[in-house]
Amino acid sequence: MGIKTIAVLTSGGDAPGMNAAIRAVVLAGHHYNLNVLGYQHGYIGLMEQEYQPLTPGDVYNIIQRGGTLLKSARCEPFKTEAGAQQAADNLQQAGVDALIVIGGDGSFRGAEHLSHFWDGQVIGLPGTIDNDVFGTDATIGYYTAIDTALENIDRVRDTADAFERIFLIEVMGRHAGFIGLSAAVGSGAEQVLLPELCEQEQIDIDALTRHIQKAQKIRGKCSYIVIVSENLWPGGANALAEDLNRRTGIECRPVILGHVQRGGSPVSLDRMLASKLGAYAVEAALAGKSGIMLGEQNAKVCEVPLAQTWSQRKPLDPYLVRIQTEMFDLLSTEA
Amino acid sequence: MGIKTIAVLTSGGDAPGMNAAIRAVVLAGHHYNLNVLGYQHGYIGLMEQEYQPLTPGDVYNIIQRGGTLLKSARCEPFKTEAGAQQAADNLQQAGVDALIVIGGDGSFRGAEHLSHFWDGQVIGLPGTIDNDVFGTDATIGYYTAIDTALENIDRVRDTADAFERIFLIEVMGRHAGFIGLSAAVGSGAEQVLLPELCEQEQIDIDALTRHIQKAQKIRGKCSYIVIVSENLWPGGANALAEDLNRRTGIECRPVILGHVQRGGSPVSLDRMLASKLGAYAVEAALAGKSGIMLGEQNAKVCEVPLAQTWSQRKPLDPYLVRIQTEMFDLLSTEA
Amino acid sequence: MGIKTIAVLTSGGDAPGMNAAIRAVVLAGHHYNLNVLGYQHGYIGLMEQEYQPLTPGDVYNIIQRGGTLLKSARCEPFKTEAGAQQAADNLQQAGVDALIVIGGDGSFRGAEHLSHFWDGQVIGLPGTIDNDVFGTDATIGYYTAIDTALENIDRVRDTADAFERIFLIEVMGRHAGFIGLSAAVGSGAEQVLLPELCEQEQIDIDALTRHIQKAQKIRGKCSYIVIVSENLWPGGANALAEDLNRRTGIECRPVILGHVQRGGSPVSLDRMLASKLGAYAVEAALAGKSGIMLGEQNAKVCEVPLAQTWSQRKPLDPYLVRIQTEMFDLLSTEA
Amino acid sequence: MGIKTIAVLTSGGDAPGMNAAIRAVVLAGHHYNLNVLGYQHGYIGLMEQEYQPLTPGDVYNIIQRGGTLLKSARCEPFKTEAGAQQAADNLQQAGVDALIVIGGDGSFRGAEHLSHFWDGQVIGLPGTIDNDVFGTDATIGYYTAIDTALENIDRVRDTADAFERIFLIEVMGRHAGFIGLSAAVGSGAEQVLLPELCEQEQIDIDALTRHIQKAQKIRGKCSYIVIVSENLWPGGANALAEDLNRRTGIECRPVILGHVQRGGSPVSLDRMLASKLGAYAVEAALAGKSGIMLGEQNAKVCEVPLAQTWSQRKPLDPYLVRIQTEMFDLLSTEA
Repeated sequence: MGIKTIAVLTSGGDAPGMNAAIRAVVLAGHHYNLNVLGYQHGYIGLMEQEYQPLTPGDVYNIIQRGGTLLKSARCEPFKTEAGAQQAADNLQQAGVDALIVIGGDGSFRGAEHLSHFWDGQVIGLPGTIDNDVFGTDATIGYYTAIDTALENIDRVRDTADAFERIFLIEVMGRHAGFIGLSAAVGSGAEQVLLPELCEQEQIDIDALTRHIQKAQKIRGKCSYIVIVSENLWPGGANALAEDLNRRTGIECRPVILGHVQRGGSPVSLDRMLASKLGAYAVEAALAGKSGIMLGEQNAKVCEVPLAQTWSQRKPLDPYLVRIQTEMFDLLSTEA
Repeated sequence: MGIKTIAVLTSGGDAPGMNAAIRAVVLAGHHYNLNVLGYQHGYIGLMEQEYQPLTPGDVYNIIQRGGTLLKSARCEPFKTEAGAQQAADNLQQAGVDALIVIGGDGSFRGAEHLSHFWDGQVIGLPGTIDNDVFGTDATIGYYTAIDTALENIDRVRDTADAFERIFLIEVMGRHAGFIGLSAAVGSGAEQVLLPELCEQEQIDIDALTRHIQKAQKIRGKCSYIVIVSENLWPGGANALAEDLNRRTGIECRPVILGHVQRGGSPVSLDRMLASKLGAYAVEAALAGKSGIMLGEQNAKVCEVPLAQTWSQRKPLDPYLVRIQTEMFDLLSTEA
Repeated sequence: MGIKTIAVLTSGGDAPGMNAAIRAVVLAGHHYNLNVLGYQHGYIGLMEQEYQPLTPGDVYNIIQRGGTLLKSARCEPFKTEAGAQQAADNLQQAGVDALIVIGGDGSFRGAEHLSHFWDGQVIGLPGTIDNDVFGTDATIGYYTAIDTALENIDRVRDTADAFERIFLIEVMGRHAGFIGLSAAVGSGAEQVLLPELCEQEQIDIDALTRHIQKAQKIRGKCSYIVIVSENLWPGGANALAEDLNRRTGIECRPVILGHVQRGGSPVSLDRMLASKLGAYAVEAALAGKSGIMLGEQNAKVCEVPLAQTWSQRKPLDPYLVRIQTEMFDLLSTEA
Repeated sequence: MGIKTIAVLTSGGDAPGMNAAIRAVVLAGHHYNLNVLGYQHGYIGLMEQEYQPLTPGDVYNIIQRGGTLLKSARCEPFKTEAGAQQAADNLQQAGVDALIVIGGDGSFRGAEHLSHFWDGQVIGLPGTIDNDVFGTDATIGYYTAIDTALENIDRVRDTADAFERIFLIEVMGRHAGFIGLSAAVGSGAEQVLLPELCEQEQIDIDALTRHIQKAQKIRGKCSYIVIVSENLWPGGANALAEDLNRRTGIECRPVILGHVQRGGSPVSLDRMLASKLGAYAVEAALAGKSGIMLGEQNAKVCEVPLAQTWSQRKPLDPYLVRIQTEMFDLLSTEA
């Protein structure tokens, strides 16, 4: 017996390496003589039966491309019963045995939702720059995003040093500080504000003000870079910069890295992770697996129940936090 | 007779290649057996007599560094008579025969101001990412800035394509559209909004709305990128994006590239331009020149009276404008 | 009357920006309601009538891609009378009024050869990383190549400094030192060996040895980078490094940048140059022009008779040469 | 009691992130009120008592720099008893309690050798692009090297595709295929030749020839990229390319990435790894540890006896090998 046809889609925010994952699914599918279908626009494509067969020729030379050739989208109607039923009917009609969903936790909730209406196999691959998916050490796209952020922060450091000025750099990471922490450690930032380190995900602006004033007092005029995760301050980095200006009397410039963090050619590690997970997804489908996300832990592919991926919170590396907030904070050791 | 001591400073917004220019001044000064002094923090350093001698060893391996090792600053007190007199006294005391100022038009106004109080030679080098200095085909830092902008816009295009969404990307260029035009042509943007192309430097939001609606009508859902120069819309790109959202009903995301455009390792052309102008500045000083900016026109070093650099406006390349706004605008040729 | 159909091909070594030029031809052709055909594999495609129509959709999102979607090739049979006659017959059969050839001097010789057998219009666009085409300040691909070279040389400098070692870095540029000179000035190399600076295009290894020994004597153990154009030494950089090892007793490592210099996403200036020249080629075709190459001089598009492009030699910038070989050579001023 | 003074040096081939590791040692040492000395030129500095105190100011803004500010070297005399004794005497004289050695397996053998003559603490940090150190998932510099290699291979792919040609790309990795495997998977190379996959570390050129011929037969003229580790073929990639030319009749171009893989600004992961290991090295020294290398396994810092680091061989990821050599090899599934 065995399965004959698999389908793949990308959903939620796009991430570098999604194309590499699609390619891996197609090449591995070809290796095992499976038909591979590509659904467009995430779950919208499922609801509107918008797909095309994918062959190795279709994925030639896309491993290095950002974005996703299958397009992505967010799709509210799919969250209804009617929406998921429509998708299930379409999958059945197309003869799909297993569906591989590349996306983040929202996409996996969608996959779980679908599985109540469709008895095909559902397998998730973590594709998001935020790295906020439990059950995998890294998500496809995260490695590229932290290098894109860092490359741009290095540029801001040049100006910060030239002008001995405060810069407040906002990075992505809705409710998770992975990008922010790596950006701070990697750039040698003077301060970092992350959801995991803020009580009730709110910045203690008094403490930040005191830290800046202490830096000025001890070191004199100097450059000072704050990395801040998005959504931690009402009005965002622009408003926070104004507040700091007012409180410290020192010019504080906001830089919002924004969507530049989502795109670009994936770095080596994202291509490798995507290749491994994409290939393994096909093998998991062949083995009859369903209701799982595939991740990588300790350099080995692993399987995680879909629901775990969003119900548990992945912690930051505590040693990195300690380095950034204590050991490398020169001000912490001075009177 | 001849001169014995030259000084160099960087002023105004920093630009990639300023270090390469400083290095060139130091190496050429060394070649001609001159003492070279480096003043810190722009005109502040002149007023506070903050300088150090610079030798070839001090500038080893800085040609590839962004920022400026001499620091930069904006300095209001220098604009007074007392301020310039203080600077003149300090230059005399330090035995400076010629002062080389690396900066933009504001810095050159400062140099002109100084020359009313000091009888040493004053020579300007154009260092600004904005390229808005008359008398030189390019300014030091411009070439790097347009590549930094483009690299980041390419990334946004990945997401714009994946989501078939509108992105509004704000680039630097206070009152000049050089960065914006090159970013638009280079990225194949669907629309560009530049000060030179807007009446009274104000965006015609009705025309923009119609263009977007036409694109949607003809091409269906699609990605659409607008490059916009800073300062063209009250509230900036964030406010403009909200307005467009409201008018078109289509999700429109702002991306503000901001200060990432100022830093980074200079590209090859900025290093070459800085090297040529820095070397030539020393030779111009030796030749007794003063009150001029050195630029490059048609690949040759040229001399321009300081006052011309800000009193005349450098035009955009009209053929590039025509390509971007007419020939490559697919919508312009469809009903 | 007027023309109805234009064709475009890329020939010779590929260069970043060729895709941008193809795109510009297609978009401008569309703007003027022309049919645009794309011939594959350079002149081979002409001989084998291998072409496809190109529409704006075909060139969407290729402005940033290296290589050439039309493929390239070198083609010996085309140089015969029979070969060119076959190509001419094919062009006539396909109804082509004007052919746009993107390539270097060898490709332009081919275009000239073709024009003896075909009475359609022939227009050349300079596309080669070497910049060795007379009549244009820069060729499409040159700007990207010098940044790719420089980026990699910066990396080697890190190691050269860490080990205080001699590195001999070979760059491309068959018989022209444009890449080599910009790489040397841009990287602050200690020495540069270019065809234009070598008598009979041969390296004076005695002078090079003495320069290295002087550097060691004056500065002690130190890093020392030599930029050398390809083809200047029998056996290439590997053999030259061995010779220098033997002569100086100091470890000398060769690095051959090779084909990495040909590829990659084009930088901003190459995209703009390609866009301008591609658009102008269509307008020149409409104006009935033929037998010319379009180039850019002093930031304006210009026309050059095809034969001039290879019969005259474009000189290096003499001031850059003087900077590199005299003014910035610290050893030249010490005993 | 407790220790008062620690020293740090870099040894062997330089690697991106060495500066970040030095910085981490200095900042953590400062945090714990230790004196930190930096020895220059690896073990040569120990023998010649060439050191300087390092303070936080000395390591400001070096986290992003390639190379090593402490210089590196290989040092034969240190391998003798007299050499190590001299080093031990010097360390004692300088009051060093613990020595932190950043380097590869050769450097760790040196550290072990030293420990027979000196009773201070010796701690190793893995710093090499080759990743061939047992006991740590990655070495400082490896992450950057694979991205540098990949970025350049992507460029070659552009040309390979444009010309439908064979390219043989030689990457570093003396006796380990980590760089080669990641480069192959990441670039979607058609073939990979690694020491671990070759019997007696010798290439089976017959099999390679057959694979190329099969590719040509099935796919027609096409691009074909082979990634090959250095030292696998007598005469290197140049000789192998010539052999393949002769055997297949197809033009085969060699590209030797060489020393460009060693330098450059470290990527985010190398900066984080270096920061963690550098900080932990100071804490391990404070805890009285000696004779160990610190590495990272499963995202946690770990300790490994020095001798294990070179006596055991770290294996390649078997799933990545299988993907590259079987699942993604389209030719393996066709007749």
